[in-house]
Amino acid sequence: MKNVDLLVLGHTAFDYIMQVKEFSKINTSAIVEEMERLNGGAAGNVAVVANKLGLDVGLISCIGKDFIGSAYEEELKSAGVDISDMIMSETKNTPTAFVLTNPEDQQMFYFYWGAAEEYQTSEVPKAAIDNARAVHLATGDPQYNIKAGKYAYSQNKLVSFDPGQDLHLYSTKDLQEVIDNCNILFGNEHEIEHICDLLDSTIDELLENGPNMVVQTLGEKGSLIYVKGEDCLEIEPVPTKAYDPTGAGDSYRAAFLSLYLRDNSLETCGRFASTVSSYIVETQGTQTNIPTPDQALEKMNDHWIDVEL
Amino acid sequence: MKNVDLLVLGHTAFDYIMQVKEFSKINTSAIVEEMERLNGGAAGNVAVVANKLGLDVGLISCIGKDFIGSAYEEELKSAGVDISDMIMSETKNTPTAFVLTNPEDQQMFYFYWGAAEEYQTSEVPKAAIDNARAVHLATGDPQYNIKAGKYAYSQNKLVSFDPGQDLHLYSTKDLQEVIDNCNILFGNEHEIEHICDLLDSTIDELLENGPNMVVQTLGEKGSLIYVKGEDCLEIEPVPTKAYDPTGAGDSYRAAFLSLYLRDNSLETCGRFASTVSSYIVETQGTQTNIPTPDQALEKMNDHWIDVEL
Repeated sequence: MKNVDLLVLGHTAFDYIMQVKEFSKINTSAIVEEMERLNGGAAGNVAVVANKLGLDVGLISCIGKDFIGSAYEEELKSAGVDISDMIMSETKNTPTAFVLTNPEDQQMFYFYWGAAEEYQTSEVPKAAIDNARAVHLATGDPQYNIKAGKYAYSQNKLVSFDPGQDLHLYSTKDLQEVIDNCNILFGNEHEIEHICDLLDSTIDELLENGPNMVVQTLGEKGSLIYVKGEDCLEIEPVPTKAYDPTGAGDSYRAAFLSLYLRDNSLETCGRFASTVSSYIVETQGTQTNIPTPDQALEKMNDHWIDVEL
Repeated sequence: MKNVDLLVLGHTAFDYIMQVKEFSKINTSAIVEEMERLNGGAAGNVAVVANKLGLDVGLISCIGKDFIGSAYEEELKSAGVDISDMIMSETKNTPTAFVLTNPEDQQMFYFYWGAAEEYQTSEVPKAAIDNARAVHLATGDPQYNIKAGKYAYSQNKLVSFDPGQDLHLYSTKDLQEVIDNCNILFGNEHEIEHICDLLDSTIDELLENGPNMVVQTLGEKGSLIYVKGEDCLEIEPVPTKAYDPTGAGDSYRAAFLSLYLRDNSLETCGRFASTVSSYIVETQGTQTNIPTPDQALEKMNDHWIDVEL
């Protein structure tokens, strides 16, 4: 892998978003009225947004035989995301999520792990980490993330960690280990609370022993940035007409890191991240409607009219 | 479209075959243990098998934006199936079937019609039909099939018709019209019975007024070939270890037509078709494990040791 600003580790996945008339019952068929196959996976999402916002980005995920030649692969390549170190399964398909929604907005979810089993037998990508300034650990295989995070941290890389919906896959010991070896912990309201419960710590205690920053995203309520020894920084949300919240968190993390790695103030990083995620929620999909850096900066400045970069 | 032996009209589709631990309940997620994306759709199946068995084949289906650049498109092109007249939807995806099976062998089915809505506004492909010796109408849009079948029949093409699982989409009047304008009616045990019920006819009466041949496939019980004024011809099945019966019927039709269009006896056509379908059921998928003509002929001759081509 070439030199990159940000190396993202974790899932690259296909997302099937389906509107059904009704759910299938056993041994009967049901009609899917609308279906979209979207590019997804938390690591893929972070990589694509960070790349669009101007970082040099590398992405390492377990992908399957259906990935080769896919539109997703083409889009990553043509955007310039370095995918030369992807872990390829010869027999399985790429991790895939199926989300079915009925007219009453009830949902069913199916997750196919597939190629992601390859993480278990994959070595820490030391060369790729050595060539990166920062490493972001997204949802993926806990043991792989822990090993990779420890190595990156030992090499004085900036390590950020976002367990996301995979939090339940980490044992308390796992969680302590990965958090002890990261600089920034990202999570939503429930995830950060759950981590504090599991580790029997307050956020201040987390900051004493592990990361030097905890960033808690609160959806439409904005976000909070905790730094050791400082007052919590509250970041307002940027109001918008939300259509699909999926991917908002990933885009926040990508946007935050894209400015943080270019030495902006935490307030600016948070506001920019809040602004970028306001774009993502306006349309379906986690990698659609990504603003250019200029668009996001302009919208951010309009909202925080007194903010200067 | 170039000159072809067989023009196949109807669905080209993606099939997702998934083994789940359990089915998703509302607002909960479930794990997909195995998932394969397979090439499917009855018309696609017939076209691919007939092509592999040596016919020059054209295929016209409604396909979506996800078809372009897909492995399915590549495989059709590299096999030499003429797909130059495919009907392309700019906004929808290719028809897709999702089949979920749990450890108790219970199943759920989801069907996405998608691009197939384009049939409604599509003209009969007269030029393609003019350039074909025979036209096979597979599952697809009934009105499109009826119009295309009538035109082909009026041009003295050999027309075969297989309503398959779409039989319920045909009104009695529709069904009478399409059957009055075909030479060969294909169906399984239940479909032929259901057609006779709907048209209030016996198979002999069907043969008086419509097709000159009715071919009824009976799964592991073999098949029956009815011709006007002749005794019903019974074709034995070719015993094999069946793993997945999906696509057996389509491969039977393709194999039958491939020999029928080369002036073989009905007995030989039926035996060859029975043999080819015995390969298809041995593996998962409707377009996998297709024998070469020589392989199929050898297996056929081994089974009917006294048969000479």
